[in-house]
Amino acid sequence: MVQQNSGATETPIDAQQTDGTPNHLAPDLSTGAAWMNGRIMPIADASVPLNDWGLIHSDITYDVVPVLDGAFFRLPLYLDRFLKSMQALRLDPDMDRPAIEAALHGLVAASGLRKAYVAMVTTRGVNMVAGSRDPRDCKNRFFAWCVPYIHVIRPEIAQTGAHAHIARTVARIPSESVDPRVKNYHWGDFTRGLFEAKDAGAETAILLDAAGNVTEGPGFNVFSVKNGRLITPDSGVLEGISRRTVLDIAREHGIAAEIRPLPLSEFMQSDEIFVTTSGGGVAPISRVDNRVFSNGVPGEITNAIHRAYFEWATRPENRTEIAYPA
Amino acid sequence: MVQQNSGATETPIDAQQTDGTPNHLAPDLSTGAAWMNGRIMPIADASVPLNDWGLIHSDITYDVVPVLDGAFFRLPLYLDRFLKSMQALRLDPDMDRPAIEAALHGLVAASGLRKAYVAMVTTRGVNMVAGSRDPRDCKNRFFAWCVPYIHVIRPEIAQTGAHAHIARTVARIPSESVDPRVKNYHWGDFTRGLFEAKDAGAETAILLDAAGNVTEGPGFNVFSVKNGRLITPDSGVLEGISRRTVLDIAREHGIAAEIRPLPLSEFMQSDEIFVTTSGGGVAPISRVDNRVFSNGVPGEITNAIHRAYFEWATRPENRTEIAYPA
Repeated sequence: MVQQNSGATETPIDAQQTDGTPNHLAPDLSTGAAWMNGRIMPIADASVPLNDWGLIHSDITYDVVPVLDGAFFRLPLYLDRFLKSMQALRLDPDMDRPAIEAALHGLVAASGLRKAYVAMVTTRGVNMVAGSRDPRDCKNRFFAWCVPYIHVIRPEIAQTGAHAHIARTVARIPSESVDPRVKNYHWGDFTRGLFEAKDAGAETAILLDAAGNVTEGPGFNVFSVKNGRLITPDSGVLEGISRRTVLDIAREHGIAAEIRPLPLSEFMQSDEIFVTTSGGGVAPISRVDNRVFSNGVPGEITNAIHRAYFEWATRPENRTEIAYPA
Repeated sequence: MVQQNSGATETPIDAQQTDGTPNHLAPDLSTGAAWMNGRIMPIADASVPLNDWGLIHSDITYDVVPVLDGAFFRLPLYLDRFLKSMQALRLDPDMDRPAIEAALHGLVAASGLRKAYVAMVTTRGVNMVAGSRDPRDCKNRFFAWCVPYIHVIRPEIAQTGAHAHIARTVARIPSESVDPRVKNYHWGDFTRGLFEAKDAGAETAILLDAAGNVTEGPGFNVFSVKNGRLITPDSGVLEGISRRTVLDIAREHGIAAEIRPLPLSEFMQSDEIFVTTSGGGVAPISRVDNRVFSNGVPGEITNAIHRAYFEWATRPENRTEIAYPA
């Protein structure tokens, strides 16, 4: 995800969208840009203080909305969730919904990116009282950044179906400790699972809860397909917008869906498996541990939903168009 | 914890200990300094990229060693733990133990601080492969920072004994998900507990595990004193160096100590309660929820151990002297 800007290049963006640099010296933002305090800059120039509580306490929330073909996909749903997350954590960066939306528009327009991964972030910020350990003394901070579209499952792997690994040495952080519906960066369990997966030669990891039910993986929700029906876990997971889009698509296509606990033993009897993520949409899983699913290729229902996801992204009612500079 | 540097002032430090700024323009480092990539700077000038995995996945470890009267207190123990934490998380910032120790010495010497809170940090860093979600593609990053000594429990409050609150809406993140012995910034549970505590008019929060046993609080271990014996939780907690120092002191003073599960019901029958932290040493708790302990003042054994802690900090074998510039 590193975005190195090699230097200043000719880019036709408004001077007011950069940090005062004249147009003819505007830096290349197409490999990644950030919005901070009303200024837009190359992502490599954007940073947070090392004593921001976002870093030193992971006291931070975020959301990620995809940009597809020059429009945000289902932006209102992402903004709804982001505002709810901030409220749950009592974060108030003094940016209302229109201001946040304007920042995201300005950022992506300035980057010129027509297919992008756009993050909005609020941190607790730096404590304004020397020595204070009270979160109420911090000045909350909003920022945003965008990079070229990211695939949580690499597309060349998703094409044939990815190999997922069930993490054995680590359980998903339970809701009683950190609410997964409040989008957070407490990824210690995911990272441990990812290392375990990579050691096992797998692409990614799926974590279980303490009861042995399937939860989610680093950046995605999980779906099982059995006898033409979808099953996805009901609790201990993020209520993903892509997960919701798949449930909406299922309804439109007359595919039944069950939202309920999904024991590992049942999951391993799936006909098809896929994961949903704002970084890639619908990605098929054709192997879990040593078991092959849907003959080692993406399943039929998975493929249909994958196609529908990107068809949905073309519908005007799901698109918030970005006004790029001419 | 914010450290604002008002500007450049006259400070007698070596040019080589600053980022190339000539001596007569050297910034004031006495309110906080950072070491990054071999350079020492005011903490307000130090930052991490906003796509460092330390921020976006809390993929980071740290340790905090106190400086008391111009010397690190029990530095080897803190370095041992920090190196173990890095190993557990497979973090390798290409800094060996002598290099880390040298960075800490140079940092504190340059700051001129003789009583300080010194953090050493390693993050997963920025991913060097565009679009990669593989932690092995990141360039790990070490840095350090110091500020004037921090009290996790405010000293004016610790003097009479603090009011702690048992968090009810949140449980400590279990070891099965994130190992608390690997010092980490997954503080979502602590922060939620802190807000709950502040709402209840308390100074700080103590978290329980899922079984209802006492674990720890934001930045401290917990001790119960009953019939002249110490009891402190055995699992689900950081193996704090200050906790260890208290156990070492207890041994020297012939005070028995039990390291075992501590149910809340038993905890609430304590004769005395105190917490241990590298930010303050031994801090008495005289009230938990609505129950008053040790007559609402620090208990006798607590006071004795508090005094012994700072006496231990004067012993040459516990001190690693810092060579401040003349």
